[in-house]
Amino acid sequence: MSQPQTYQNQIIIDGLQYCRWDRAYFETLKASGITAVHATLVYHETARETLSRFAEWNQRFEQNSDLIMPVMNMADVETAKVTGKVGIFFGAQNCSPIEDDIGLVEVMRKQGLLIMQLTYNNQSLLATGCYEQQDSGVTRFGKQVIAEMNRVGMIIDMSHSAERSTLEAIDLSARPICISHANPSFAHQALRNKSTAVITALASRGGLIGFSLYPFHLPNSSQCTLEAFCQMIATTADMVGVDHLGIGSDLCLNQPQTVLEWMRNGRWSKAMDYGEGSASNASWPDALPWFCNSTGMENIYNGLFQQGFNASEVGQIMGGNWFNFLKTGLSPESQQTSK
Amino acid sequence: MSQPQTYQNQIIIDGLQYCRWDRAYFETLKASGITAVHATLVYHETARETLSRFAEWNQRFEQNSDLIMPVMNMADVETAKVTGKVGIFFGAQNCSPIEDDIGLVEVMRKQGLLIMQLTYNNQSLLATGCYEQQDSGVTRFGKQVIAEMNRVGMIIDMSHSAERSTLEAIDLSARPICISHANPSFAHQALRNKSTAVITALASRGGLIGFSLYPFHLPNSSQCTLEAFCQMIATTADMVGVDHLGIGSDLCLNQPQTVLEWMRNGRWSKAMDYGEGSASNASWPDALPWFCNSTGMENIYNGLFQQGFNASEVGQIMGGNWFNFLKTGLSPESQQTSK
Repeated sequence: MSQPQTYQNQIIIDGLQYCRWDRAYFETLKASGITAVHATLVYHETARETLSRFAEWNQRFEQNSDLIMPVMNMADVETAKVTGKVGIFFGAQNCSPIEDDIGLVEVMRKQGLLIMQLTYNNQSLLATGCYEQQDSGVTRFGKQVIAEMNRVGMIIDMSHSAERSTLEAIDLSARPICISHANPSFAHQALRNKSTAVITALASRGGLIGFSLYPFHLPNSSQCTLEAFCQMIATTADMVGVDHLGIGSDLCLNQPQTVLEWMRNGRWSKAMDYGEGSASNASWPDALPWFCNSTGMENIYNGLFQQGFNASEVGQIMGGNWFNFLKTGLSPESQQTSK
Repeated sequence: MSQPQTYQNQIIIDGLQYCRWDRAYFETLKASGITAVHATLVYHETARETLSRFAEWNQRFEQNSDLIMPVMNMADVETAKVTGKVGIFFGAQNCSPIEDDIGLVEVMRKQGLLIMQLTYNNQSLLATGCYEQQDSGVTRFGKQVIAEMNRVGMIIDMSHSAERSTLEAIDLSARPICISHANPSFAHQALRNKSTAVITALASRGGLIGFSLYPFHLPNSSQCTLEAFCQMIATTADMVGVDHLGIGSDLCLNQPQTVLEWMRNGRWSKAMDYGEGSASNASWPDALPWFCNSTGMENIYNGLFQQGFNASEVGQIMGGNWFNFLKTGLSPESQQTSK
């Protein structure tokens, strides 16, 4: 006799966070009931700097082993669920960790970089970011890297990429890709949000989009209601079905302004770039009142039922879809049964 | 009914080689009956350069998967034996891959660096090399690194270290260490060979010495006979027993002079340093005629019987001791049952 579904017995996955990763926050995460989190490891770091970010995480795992554990595959997520720990898996928001070296894809994958964006707002060596005026699509090196990421089971993320580049990546990749944290443009026009063309192409090739809680991606920004957020998910489900939807909160809590500036400016600009903000609105946006502490994911869980999703569908959106997508996407090419 | 012991059904491990790693040599290795080889990954490479060496090996594994396979643990060595492939595991001859960063020990270990020398001939950040005039022992950073290597299961190798530093490392390390490739000074006086004090201290703490086939480490250099080599092993066994002895051939075949110069000079000298050679003898020493092709290890196997070792002892020296030493030494600290 199976137990009735509750929030507590679900696998809950947040498809992107970049909070200040300290013990206090790990306690919040554990209390939130989240099973696993995609944590941003780097924005603009070189290969060498990326190793230091891994080293810092190794120390966090050592010092907080009662709360968190590293995730290399979905068996680790199952272990996290059973042991009541929060699993952490890593992604890069940019392709800087591989520099100009195709061989670093496998090296970084082995180190635990499971997901990589091909671009972060700007043009990269691989593709065009969503803030550029001209989108020239996937580059020569980009095509090689997509094939190599497919081979080693590193997941392609186009959250911060421009439209043409994203459509080309969806098409070029032999395996489904993700947009880990962005919203549909129909809900809110923003350079970072995605057109219906992108979302339907993504879904038709087995991809996944994680809905973002970052205020700049939402209607009414920090005043967006839980109901409006869940309504956006329901409308997208009407478009492309439930199987391709997840949460990628883009949640950033407790980070200093310096992190925001690194994220927006890296080493590429002498003048201050304000990203989705502006000179008069340069700091972090206010967090949503219903998604700023340990009850955020459970609020969404309940909000989805209000939209008419059934228990199975809610389970899919809250983590089941991410779980299945990652399980397939992270397996090396040789272990795939079919494409 | 157990099969009679033959060379072919033994696990044969060579505790150090740095040949030119191409397909022709992998075929030679496979024909030699060697089960697994400790391959030198780097001499003086930085962390970033070390990643490129890993990337090059990833490509070798991809392109020669019928002949070789990577080894991360002893289960992989057993797989290599069963599938008739040669297992390759990696070590650094110097501590350059971790630069000045304690956090890189775990990062490099996860990438597949299973063994690391604390020094390579010169003073390092960790300890003193065997060519220095003054041996100041293990440094402050060195003590931290030894503890961290113990924690993550990275094996300490003191082949190129000076006497006091070696004795201190043996003592400081909570786990047995190795001298992967060197010979006893009683057989041949050389800065690279080891005193009886070092060898007995090493063995008393459960360590392992791999006997070297590098001519500069042998009596009569390239004219050293198989009998004299095996005699040296027998004399050492009389001193410290059979359990602590292995082979670490230090074999280098087909490498250009540039590799020898990188190995000897790195970036540290503007004048040419000739290492164990000299200005008039600057190139590779001639390989031993009985250890220069695919029959080398089998020659030693047979030569050890001639010295009176029994079948079990010969099996230990040819690979069994390395296997057990590595199995214990590579397990993370938390998985050790006792110290």
